[in-house]
Amino acid sequence: MNGLYDVAAIGNAIVDVIAPAGDAFLAAEGLAKGSMMLIDARRADELYTRMAPGIEASGGSAGNTVAGVASLGGRSAYIGKVADDALGAIFTHDIRAIGAHFATAPLKNGPATARCLINVTPDGQRTMCTYLGACVELTAHDVDPATVEAAEVLYLEGYLFDPPEARRAFAKAAGLARGAGRKIALSLSDAFVAERHRHALLAFIDAQVDILFANEVEIAALFDTGNWAAAAREVRTRVAIAAITRGEAGSLVLCPETEHIVAAAPVARVVDTTGAGDQYAAGFLFGLASGKPLDVCGQLGSLAAAEVIGHYGPRPETSLAELARTAALEAAT
Amino acid sequence: MNGLYDVAAIGNAIVDVIAPAGDAFLAAEGLAKGSMMLIDARRADELYTRMAPGIEASGGSAGNTVAGVASLGGRSAYIGKVADDALGAIFTHDIRAIGAHFATAPLKNGPATARCLINVTPDGQRTMCTYLGACVELTAHDVDPATVEAAEVLYLEGYLFDPPEARRAFAKAAGLARGAGRKIALSLSDAFVAERHRHALLAFIDAQVDILFANEVEIAALFDTGNWAAAAREVRTRVAIAAITRGEAGSLVLCPETEHIVAAAPVARVVDTTGAGDQYAAGFLFGLASGKPLDVCGQLGSLAAAEVIGHYGPRPETSLAELARTAALEAAT
Repeated sequence: MNGLYDVAAIGNAIVDVIAPAGDAFLAAEGLAKGSMMLIDARRADELYTRMAPGIEASGGSAGNTVAGVASLGGRSAYIGKVADDALGAIFTHDIRAIGAHFATAPLKNGPATARCLINVTPDGQRTMCTYLGACVELTAHDVDPATVEAAEVLYLEGYLFDPPEARRAFAKAAGLARGAGRKIALSLSDAFVAERHRHALLAFIDAQVDILFANEVEIAALFDTGNWAAAAREVRTRVAIAAITRGEAGSLVLCPETEHIVAAAPVARVVDTTGAGDQYAAGFLFGLASGKPLDVCGQLGSLAAAEVIGHYGPRPETSLAELARTAALEAAT
Repeated sequence: MNGLYDVAAIGNAIVDVIAPAGDAFLAAEGLAKGSMMLIDARRADELYTRMAPGIEASGGSAGNTVAGVASLGGRSAYIGKVADDALGAIFTHDIRAIGAHFATAPLKNGPATARCLINVTPDGQRTMCTYLGACVELTAHDVDPATVEAAEVLYLEGYLFDPPEARRAFAKAAGLARGAGRKIALSLSDAFVAERHRHALLAFIDAQVDILFANEVEIAALFDTGNWAAAAREVRTRVAIAAITRGEAGSLVLCPETEHIVAAAPVARVVDTTGAGDQYAAGFLFGLASGKPLDVCGQLGSLAAAEVIGHYGPRPETSLAELARTAALEAAT
């Protein structure tokens, strides 16, 4: 049965503040390059004061993925919590304007819309500090059954293992998707997230996950090993599909019986890798929902990731559907 | 006497909302490509709802120029009105973070921080709709004498002829600068602005302006002619220096007795011309304050404009000082 949506996603609804920074700045602020760190409102204000001038753009891992699916011509839906404020209005506008369904009620009289302060070093790596704000108020009540049940794939970001109430939302959504015969995909999001919530994540993966996204560092962290290849072997025994992204080395798509090595798509100049993993997931899931073979799913992931790496901001600036047509990877719908 | 600042500027303090659009969208919304139109809060909400997903970035013509001067290594100050809200905090952060002095008190219990909805067509042209919000509350009281008197050049944006109170701020600032023996520069900002306020602008230019910035269309509009070359001849009789920008044809720097033809700097790909004129003014004024000859001032303008044309957003993403060093145009300070 075809769903109304290709992908429905649940995530932390965040507006990104993106600015260039040097390695010395990261060191002075005690930030581990390439990671995501949770910060409180006071630390957010303090860090922002010291950051360079930046741009603001809607972000949030799963939100970026949903935007990527829409940019590829797919039908997508999003569940996440913003506040009833200016940044919340920006997030809401952007995700709806790209064609995604977004109907989660905004939070009133609570914390502000979440912000992610992203320092981008000259090598294009992004280091993120997130003030979760309204995101911590996402509850199972916000998971609309009709939306989840109508999507071919339910996509969940690992970051949602941080706000405590969100895990119940996860559990509810997974139950609904399973009941409707849908697939469930999870992104590990971040190595520290994988470390912090290793046991809960592994339990969830074993019980519920069909498709797992991770990069080399995250998959190694999940299995508590320094050897990502060993972790990759381990994950094949646990999920039907694991897509391991490897930066400029491309990606590996692993199934219990088969594997595909997928090249990265060319990038003229690496400006900002924010959103690269999210867009890889977008391309992959759009391909999967369109019935493409797994190697083509991986190639669509590479293509979508390459687009966002070339500019500041985590979501596509050009139509991914057109890029896919040019690359002759369009969906066989 | 050397001033504490190279440039002090007064302008509408605005946060830009920048999104891609097709020509058909401009036509459907009744927008004249390349222009700036003032809109009210209701129209702003309505238009925003129909715009594509975008990014947000601090803008405002004179604010962009001040940021460009700072990026070149110059000392700059800004006077403009934001509200005490989230977008106001972003504007304030960005202009201070680049090193400019900004101390105008934010507006409380009034309209929100100004937004400029910018639709960028595939040819890189930007079409702007501005909700002035808190900007209309800028008054002469906000013009800090110490700041204006301490700057080599006072820079004023023509857009400030729209909010009525701002003209008094202009008059006060010009009087202070003149009294302190400083130079006064004006940008015409927009052809419709030049048309709407032709007589007031001409009177102000004749009485107060040493350096005038305009593009071909704006200078023709000011002198109510379809012939920009005729307008350029006319302007030479009125100001000491006129810099006429001509897009990819470069610029003309005109004085009563001399003229310089300045080439445009190369741009790999025109993405978004928002802020190109503002950055030209930044390069030119930084050169002037650094004692450079006029042709080098024009070249610094071309270099700064070329940087912002290559990406979304009106302010430099890379250090203009480094670009100038690479191009061997650094200041002889």
